[in-house]
Amino acid sequence: MKTFEELESAVRSYSRGWPTVFNKAKGYKLWDTDGKEYIDFFAGAGTMNYGHNDDTMQQKVIEYIQNDGIIHSLDMGTTPRKEFLENFKEIILTPRKLDYKIMFPGPTGTNTVESALKIARKVTGRETVISFTNAFHGMTIGSLSVTGNSFKRHGAGVPLHHSVSMPFDNYVENHDSIAYLERFLEDSGSGVALPAAIILETVQGEGGINAARIEWLQKIEELCKRWDILLIVDDVQAGNGRTGTFFSFEPAGIEPDVVCLSKSIGGFGLPMAITLIKPEHDKWGPGEHNGTFRGNNLAFIAATEALSYWKNNDFEKEVQEKAEILKTAVSTIIEKYPELNGEARGRGLMQGIAVEEEGLATEICAEAFQRGLIVETSGPKDEVVKFLPPLIIDKVGLEKGFQLLDDSINYVLNK
Amino acid sequence: MKTFEELESAVRSYSRGWPTVFNKAKGYKLWDTDGKEYIDFFAGAGTMNYGHNDDTMQQKVIEYIQNDGIIHSLDMGTTPRKEFLENFKEIILTPRKLDYKIMFPGPTGTNTVESALKIARKVTGRETVISFTNAFHGMTIGSLSVTGNSFKRHGAGVPLHHSVSMPFDNYVENHDSIAYLERFLEDSGSGVALPAAIILETVQGEGGINAARIEWLQKIEELCKRWDILLIVDDVQAGNGRTGTFFSFEPAGIEPDVVCLSKSIGGFGLPMAITLIKPEHDKWGPGEHNGTFRGNNLAFIAATEALSYWKNNDFEKEVQEKAEILKTAVSTIIEKYPELNGEARGRGLMQGIAVEEEGLATEICAEAFQRGLIVETSGPKDEVVKFLPPLIIDKVGLEKGFQLLDDSINYVLNK
Amino acid sequence: MKTFEELESAVRSYSRGWPTVFNKAKGYKLWDTDGKEYIDFFAGAGTMNYGHNDDTMQQKVIEYIQNDGIIHSLDMGTTPRKEFLENFKEIILTPRKLDYKIMFPGPTGTNTVESALKIARKVTGRETVISFTNAFHGMTIGSLSVTGNSFKRHGAGVPLHHSVSMPFDNYVENHDSIAYLERFLEDSGSGVALPAAIILETVQGEGGINAARIEWLQKIEELCKRWDILLIVDDVQAGNGRTGTFFSFEPAGIEPDVVCLSKSIGGFGLPMAITLIKPEHDKWGPGEHNGTFRGNNLAFIAATEALSYWKNNDFEKEVQEKAEILKTAVSTIIEKYPELNGEARGRGLMQGIAVEEEGLATEICAEAFQRGLIVETSGPKDEVVKFLPPLIIDKVGLEKGFQLLDDSINYVLNK
Amino acid sequence: MKTFEELESAVRSYSRGWPTVFNKAKGYKLWDTDGKEYIDFFAGAGTMNYGHNDDTMQQKVIEYIQNDGIIHSLDMGTTPRKEFLENFKEIILTPRKLDYKIMFPGPTGTNTVESALKIARKVTGRETVISFTNAFHGMTIGSLSVTGNSFKRHGAGVPLHHSVSMPFDNYVENHDSIAYLERFLEDSGSGVALPAAIILETVQGEGGINAARIEWLQKIEELCKRWDILLIVDDVQAGNGRTGTFFSFEPAGIEPDVVCLSKSIGGFGLPMAITLIKPEHDKWGPGEHNGTFRGNNLAFIAATEALSYWKNNDFEKEVQEKAEILKTAVSTIIEKYPELNGEARGRGLMQGIAVEEEGLATEICAEAFQRGLIVETSGPKDEVVKFLPPLIIDKVGLEKGFQLLDDSINYVLNK
Repeated sequence: MKTFEELESAVRSYSRGWPTVFNKAKGYKLWDTDGKEYIDFFAGAGTMNYGHNDDTMQQKVIEYIQNDGIIHSLDMGTTPRKEFLENFKEIILTPRKLDYKIMFPGPTGTNTVESALKIARKVTGRETVISFTNAFHGMTIGSLSVTGNSFKRHGAGVPLHHSVSMPFDNYVENHDSIAYLERFLEDSGSGVALPAAIILETVQGEGGINAARIEWLQKIEELCKRWDILLIVDDVQAGNGRTGTFFSFEPAGIEPDVVCLSKSIGGFGLPMAITLIKPEHDKWGPGEHNGTFRGNNLAFIAATEALSYWKNNDFEKEVQEKAEILKTAVSTIIEKYPELNGEARGRGLMQGIAVEEEGLATEICAEAFQRGLIVETSGPKDEVVKFLPPLIIDKVGLEKGFQLLDDSINYVLNK
Repeated sequence: MKTFEELESAVRSYSRGWPTVFNKAKGYKLWDTDGKEYIDFFAGAGTMNYGHNDDTMQQKVIEYIQNDGIIHSLDMGTTPRKEFLENFKEIILTPRKLDYKIMFPGPTGTNTVESALKIARKVTGRETVISFTNAFHGMTIGSLSVTGNSFKRHGAGVPLHHSVSMPFDNYVENHDSIAYLERFLEDSGSGVALPAAIILETVQGEGGINAARIEWLQKIEELCKRWDILLIVDDVQAGNGRTGTFFSFEPAGIEPDVVCLSKSIGGFGLPMAITLIKPEHDKWGPGEHNGTFRGNNLAFIAATEALSYWKNNDFEKEVQEKAEILKTAVSTIIEKYPELNGEARGRGLMQGIAVEEEGLATEICAEAFQRGLIVETSGPKDEVVKFLPPLIIDKVGLEKGFQLLDDSINYVLNK
Repeated sequence: MKTFEELESAVRSYSRGWPTVFNKAKGYKLWDTDGKEYIDFFAGAGTMNYGHNDDTMQQKVIEYIQNDGIIHSLDMGTTPRKEFLENFKEIILTPRKLDYKIMFPGPTGTNTVESALKIARKVTGRETVISFTNAFHGMTIGSLSVTGNSFKRHGAGVPLHHSVSMPFDNYVENHDSIAYLERFLEDSGSGVALPAAIILETVQGEGGINAARIEWLQKIEELCKRWDILLIVDDVQAGNGRTGTFFSFEPAGIEPDVVCLSKSIGGFGLPMAITLIKPEHDKWGPGEHNGTFRGNNLAFIAATEALSYWKNNDFEKEVQEKAEILKTAVSTIIEKYPELNGEARGRGLMQGIAVEEEGLATEICAEAFQRGLIVETSGPKDEVVKFLPPLIIDKVGLEKGFQLLDDSINYVLNK
Repeated sequence: MKTFEELESAVRSYSRGWPTVFNKAKGYKLWDTDGKEYIDFFAGAGTMNYGHNDDTMQQKVIEYIQNDGIIHSLDMGTTPRKEFLENFKEIILTPRKLDYKIMFPGPTGTNTVESALKIARKVTGRETVISFTNAFHGMTIGSLSVTGNSFKRHGAGVPLHHSVSMPFDNYVENHDSIAYLERFLEDSGSGVALPAAIILETVQGEGGINAARIEWLQKIEELCKRWDILLIVDDVQAGNGRTGTFFSFEPAGIEPDVVCLSKSIGGFGLPMAITLIKPEHDKWGPGEHNGTFRGNNLAFIAATEALSYWKNNDFEKEVQEKAEILKTAVSTIIEKYPELNGEARGRGLMQGIAVEEEGLATEICAEAFQRGLIVETSGPKDEVVKFLPPLIIDKVGLEKGFQLLDDSINYVLNK
């Protein structure tokens, strides 16, 4: 650990909470250099939905390298890019009756969000973007301007502009946040300009595992249509099957104008992101948004392989079944430990327990790490213990993980 | 190509200029799916300095995957991260008597620039950053605000703030751009606030292969010191040996407060970036800047291997010798084709020929592509033919490339 | 009228709604060049609270000019400035147990608002200012950024920054706007930074005669104290006795950190404004805010005379009695004409009737003008008929005015 | 003075430099309450061009009040407004072959500048405005964003946007500031967007009495025409005859798209401002810019009277003769006191002496005040002694003033 402390910038964070050196990972397990095994309830913050080192992906990636496949290619045409495009169209878009142009905006979540904001502003000729309380969309200035967290925002070092923060679903008790938003939009004296876009996560991952109700999402889409506002769904964390369907918004039956995908889209943990844009909004000039790493062919190879999970409904059903198990486990914990004043959050395999006492969630996660469970907090005050196991985890893994969690809570509450 | 046209967003650009599908690459050569061979004078816009598919890197990366090495790890401690940090310190920093904390800001050039701007603003408590005409620093809103190109800036869809554009070296004929900058800084009525930082590329890659004179760089550092301004060198394209030394600023003997590295730092073409920060400026709070793909272990593996090129001075000398060959080749072309009104630009293996007639450079590059040479334009009007061969290219490769270029120019001028 | 149409800019507005040329005014009456008499229910948008051409003010102003009194003096010391300061302290501040430093920020409402925003930002070191839906604070960029009206905001030609619009009292039916504001302030993930100040009008004049409830004002003050936010009351239109007390916020018992006064503070209709700042917040450097017309001595002469209305409680009581008459008149109209779907708004001598049908309020005011009543609309859709008679109006005047209004409504509804 | 110290805000400035209480003024003289007489070389910072208490203006203003003339009228039609419009057209515009729509933007300099910026942005659909080093355009956020002084800018408390500061004429020795500006405009990679407008003072009053050369003004106009940029001349201080012609730009033969006038336009020292807009640019919607004090009828009465000075060329010739006397006096002082290292600045009756030693100009002005001369400093470091006598001053007054100045310099240099 001394290496990190001495050579790396003070900005490092995970290596503080999980003070060890990892070197191996497979499926839902990780190992550190001492050989200690960890159950993964974190999945690279939603990047390892298909588990670590999937055998087929490993093999395909290795083969590609062995054949001197072109590794880096900006947005040049390459075979892996072509195959990814075709498979994504065929396996994901067509069966869902969705029609999108696919953009490679650079390989990170914040790249796709920045590209989404740009195209929405270009298409509408407007500047304001409405985002929601406790949203997290990324750390570059454009994405940060639609992010809620004050510590992150303050880090910008400059005031953040061209965005307005509106209350997410259930933000104020007994208040309808849609009514509030609607009033601001319809009143020409509201002080909020007609926005280019509304950007949202259907389940806020970093903001506290806040899941919007299905009808709330539907009403937002309706408002967008009524005022000709583009709807951007940032599915970077909640997409790729995390909530039980490939896109998190499928149960709502909505069709966002722009969709941001990253994290698990690459399948194997390699940097990759795409932006989906309705054909009528694809008004980019060539190269109007660019970037060096838009052609990460190794990621495309693995990404294409990952799509095979979605060729039929089996995987989806499996994830939904595990989601029920997770939900039960969460309820059990909350009932068993009333001292937590725990509140269940989330949906699919993206759930959490909000606990009241300040610092308690952090303590629980630290204890869990000691016991071999990788689990992280979320929320503006780190008040939520967040469960994001790889989607491929089995029942044994879920149970083992929850046993470690139970032990940790028990220990922390009684020490 | 139909796949790209039909499925991909209109934003794609390289696949328009080089309309083929690539699938293999080795050293300084690429092949498309028809088996056609191309000489690479582009090197992934400076990402493939060590050539494509370096044997040792291939082997190390494959081995790591085969051993179930952890692929994705945010900023958790991992073995490859540890080894990269130690080697970078030992091979790069220590021998150059440089002392920097190393930050992993996310895996792209724009991530490192955004992190550099943030820390400069935090450290100084100021907001303005001075950048230069024809600078290119990236496409997210923070980086775009210090980028010169009006097409790219316009793409933001919002006005860009907290930055001031000053004339780069030799911007106006017979005018000393340092005198101008100095006057704005010393005059409290200039309308330009004391900036947090000055950010620059020593050789502007996208802006037209404009190489600042060594004494200009030294004067900029002097101004920074006089007014307590942080100096940020964006060495994303010009660094990693491109100009003949590891850092492009070494010949000037300056010590920037912050250095941005990306592109070839990953060695193999995988997304990676680092930000170097003088220890006294490393004032980050934990997680104040973060991102999902800061732990691209495959990139770290290759990056560490790439550092071995710098264990002694041989590689540096080799590159400098090739730079002389390139310089001669450039002069020869300019003299041979007076109709070009060609102007030599750049230094090291980062050179170019500016041609006067609008559209001519683009035509030359298109013709070169037909003949099997990958070479791209640069500059605000795409008026520069830009040569960025992999540093590992041999004389045969350079000569063959220039022969193809010569043929292309000849053809274009006479058709 | 041809002169105005041909020579004046298209921006002119009142000369369109009241297409005549005025030349005389006395008390609550105006006359045009044809000798036609008008009852004034407008009072120069709240500037003529003491009526037109008050005899004593006329005499004092004339005397001063006749004696070659200095007319223009920036912020130099002059006798009228001195006397105003002393009288304002003695007659207004001391009896109300208020302690403020008095600033002359330039002679218009927007000057005082801009100065208030500046000092709040300087004192707190913060940038954001919270304003409210349908607020109107002025037309220069700083004031406009805290103004709600989209037509006015759009006129800026640039995005407006550093402000956040929150719901005014009763903005969304059955929703407690304080709960929203409180939630945004207490939640560090809300996306709204801790503001420098909250700025409000207790009764929104331009925004539709929306009167905040007394307890709402008290809760706002409480929130400001809890989070160390400066409270700015813009009393430009609602102050100077308009609502029945000198300051409009007196019934709430609150003590704003900064108060903006203009319009009737000058007594006679001459440009004047002051900014009241709690001594502990008076952190200005000399000349940090300045302006050529901060020394309008004729205005100071009349302003000092106007203060004599406040030497005892008689005037206050008188105004409150007339306010009751106005309230009754408003109810009577609403009941008499159910077709209006009228809603009573406001308090003191600042009341209005909101009517449902679009364009109807404008039609009523146009008809009233024909019949000799000067009355204007207000609100984001010009949906409110707004009554702002001079405070010195007598019962006869009020009755006559309302008779003309009644006739106008009757005519408009039945034509 | 105690009244000002105790009751007024710390922002007051002139009452510090001239610590007395003025009460009378006539022509080019002022008197304080002790009866001490002062020669006026300041003219209300350019507001009292026609001297204090002009007999005819006094009489007209008094008559108007005595007749119960309407005092305050927003932008309603009134007789004084009508007469001002007609006279301004006939006496000022028509003889100079200028065609402008006249706008009343509110009664201060910063109001007219804000309106000019707005209309330029609306007409062009662009956001950036180019201003110049050491410009002063006003203290509200819009005007401040095009003002150079860092102390004033810092007072905004927020970063100032949508403006770019370019070097004024002669800003950097031996550098052609037009060449810089031209390069930034023609280069699409300059980082400076095509601006909506260029705003300038022909002689910078607050910035140090910097007079642009006539050919510099002509070249600026040419650049504006070439790129379809609006040219705004802020003639608030240099207009109204101050430089020897009614508009300061007349000798250059240019025709700005927008002209800002305030200060002496009111003739008598009462707040007034107008914005002149070429008819083709008068794209305002009714009320898109408004303000309570746009109908200051007393100012219009005096302003109309002031225009009579311009009915023939006599006044113009007189001012130019006095300008020559002033020029000679300035040279004499500079030669007589080589210790000053004095530099002559300005043109017309707007001249100054820049002195090298820090604080010296302030000392000279303070001493002059003691001796009965009102004269102020200017420039970013208060390094210029600035002479702005009323235009109606006679030779005796000029000589007497310069005698007092000479004595003061002599005293200060030898004490």
